[in-house]
Amino acid sequence: MTTPSNGLIEAPRGLRNVAVTSTELGDVRGREGFYHYRQYSAIDLAVSRTFEDVWFLFLEGRLPDAAERRRFGEEIAALRPLPDELTTILPEIARAGRELQPLSALRTALSFLASARDLRPLWDIDAELRKQDAMMVCAVTPTILAALHRLRTGSEPLSPLPALSTAENWLYMITARRPAQAHAKAVETYLTSTIDHGFNASTFTARVVASAGADLVSAVTAAIGAFSGPLHGGAPDRALETIDTIGTPDRIDEWIRPRVAAGERIMGFGHAAYRTQDPRARLLRETALELGGGLAEFAAVVEQRVVEILAELKPGRELYANVEFYAGVVMELCGIPRSMFTPTFAVSRVIGWSANILEEAAAGKIIRPSARYVGPEPPQPVPAG
Amino acid sequence: MTTPSNGLIEAPRGLRNVAVTSTELGDVRGREGFYHYRQYSAIDLAVSRTFEDVWFLFLEGRLPDAAERRRFGEEIAALRPLPDELTTILPEIARAGRELQPLSALRTALSFLASARDLRPLWDIDAELRKQDAMMVCAVTPTILAALHRLRTGSEPLSPLPALSTAENWLYMITARRPAQAHAKAVETYLTSTIDHGFNASTFTARVVASAGADLVSAVTAAIGAFSGPLHGGAPDRALETIDTIGTPDRIDEWIRPRVAAGERIMGFGHAAYRTQDPRARLLRETALELGGGLAEFAAVVEQRVVEILAELKPGRELYANVEFYAGVVMELCGIPRSMFTPTFAVSRVIGWSANILEEAAAGKIIRPSARYVGPEPPQPVPAG
Repeated sequence: MTTPSNGLIEAPRGLRNVAVTSTELGDVRGREGFYHYRQYSAIDLAVSRTFEDVWFLFLEGRLPDAAERRRFGEEIAALRPLPDELTTILPEIARAGRELQPLSALRTALSFLASARDLRPLWDIDAELRKQDAMMVCAVTPTILAALHRLRTGSEPLSPLPALSTAENWLYMITARRPAQAHAKAVETYLTSTIDHGFNASTFTARVVASAGADLVSAVTAAIGAFSGPLHGGAPDRALETIDTIGTPDRIDEWIRPRVAAGERIMGFGHAAYRTQDPRARLLRETALELGGGLAEFAAVVEQRVVEILAELKPGRELYANVEFYAGVVMELCGIPRSMFTPTFAVSRVIGWSANILEEAAAGKIIRPSARYVGPEPPQPVPAG
Repeated sequence: MTTPSNGLIEAPRGLRNVAVTSTELGDVRGREGFYHYRQYSAIDLAVSRTFEDVWFLFLEGRLPDAAERRRFGEEIAALRPLPDELTTILPEIARAGRELQPLSALRTALSFLASARDLRPLWDIDAELRKQDAMMVCAVTPTILAALHRLRTGSEPLSPLPALSTAENWLYMITARRPAQAHAKAVETYLTSTIDHGFNASTFTARVVASAGADLVSAVTAAIGAFSGPLHGGAPDRALETIDTIGTPDRIDEWIRPRVAAGERIMGFGHAAYRTQDPRARLLRETALELGGGLAEFAAVVEQRVVEILAELKPGRELYANVEFYAGVVMELCGIPRSMFTPTFAVSRVIGWSANILEEAAAGKIIRPSARYVGPEPPQPVPAG
């Protein structure tokens, strides 16, 4: 795999399977259909623990005891309100552009906040201050995203309620209603199961920026940028559109077959890491079916039939439903508007990014590969201008 | 160098010397003290061509003829004025924080502009539209940075003048005076010689984000974040402070020796890539000496003595003056305030980042390595909460 030439080490295209750093945060086992946060199954955590417990696990390396849980909850609640520095600028950010691009708007707001607070490079501050920056950014992200949504739709932003959890506040700040318990629980399951997922492209980007010692927001905004790339994946609204468009069970074959035959990707199916079922899809299928209703049942029918068709038309490819297929269903059933599906994902993933950033900053070694020059041999004489 | 284990390929720490992508944009030959833009010596280009000619070279792969040069100049001039979308928000961005952090403020402004203009993912647009985005961002970056400086220092931003070059406009928009020809030429030499420089960490970051197909501003803002990291390097103001602090030739030894002995890095000396003189330092020494005056001469004295001391105290390390040592001297002599030294670097480097972004986007393959999990073996049972 490596053939040194010109002092350069050749790597597989896209650095696929190249271990670039070490992590204690977790991993994905694609063949087993298993992923973990630290030493725990992420699915087990999503089923049996709160989002805040798992957030604590990422930051501290262990689950909290009762006293730690209370303190951590108070700390988050104190950090959650919209920062004063953003009150004048956020309406302008919300209004920019023909459509609200929530993640790009979040990036602008966080970048502004970093300036307003003179956020310092991770390289120049100790582990405790780094963690405080991470707590602040993660706590305020849902508030910013919900406020942007409210402003864009002509309503006033709602202040988070101290007694509510992250998932409850998220639903409350978007919908202006205190959420039903079942909805809050379902969203919490989704959020917890998507905090982190191995070494995806946005996580890698965050770690590269952190490895240069930059401040936390520099790394988070870089991750947001990578995440917005169509090759990164992550658009639960598009998977739900597929389900909508198919509409009835008898139309599954006529809609799916020609698209697969034409080599198109079916949104919500297939994953770079998994060669078996995506464990998040399995979890969220159950979550959706527990919420009940026609959409969840129809989605399960679509899933089963699409997997059969893919097995027939793409034998050996092992294509299954991925996290996005059921994520959209769960969010729809909980009353989250479709424009807020991807932002919901950001609410949880910002915690994964932050944990990766803190870990990489502690490693203290810049990630700086090389490129192979493949142009004409220099130096050629510069022609007169 | 590579030992496959768990399907992962082990790479050197920080991916040092690992070729992650191919480029036709240029390279650095550290042993020879040589770097090139495409097939031309970058130094030769900086000496004999305009900044705009070399900008064209990066975008188009060849130097312009007379007609192309005129058209390209007109295109840049049309794109240079401050975008209307930024007029209300820029004063707020300028005022954020105790001190102006110009690059973080630039990031906020560009991120806002991307939303305001609904900038599309590179993956979704053709090469011509990509190039237009790159031209826009590169043309407007100096205007934004100069406006932020003016606003912060209590003056009105100045509109760029259509008849002036990039270097002339940069000096004019900062100082509110039409620059002397010698100053404009010196700044142009600096800008041209720093457009690109191999595969540094910010360039790599920009390419990772571009490889996910994200929009141009997502990649540029990510690069700005990486560039702000203390491990990235790039602070000509700190090198100049060293020269100031030393003050007189007789104090060089007493200031430098104890610091080198204590293992401190001397700002402005040493470079990750060069094992001989940094060709940019050589070029900018000449530029500074041509501008004339006591500072340039004193800097040359300091350089010579520090190199001697380093050779004595760090034998075999081959430590020489780097680009920053003389960059600060040149900018000081041209009347650029010290807070604008790093922004001046961004004015040229944004063109290098953009060219790298366009090249990576055209390659169309996501850069997505892996991490090795080194924590306790999962799955452990989740304790009851």
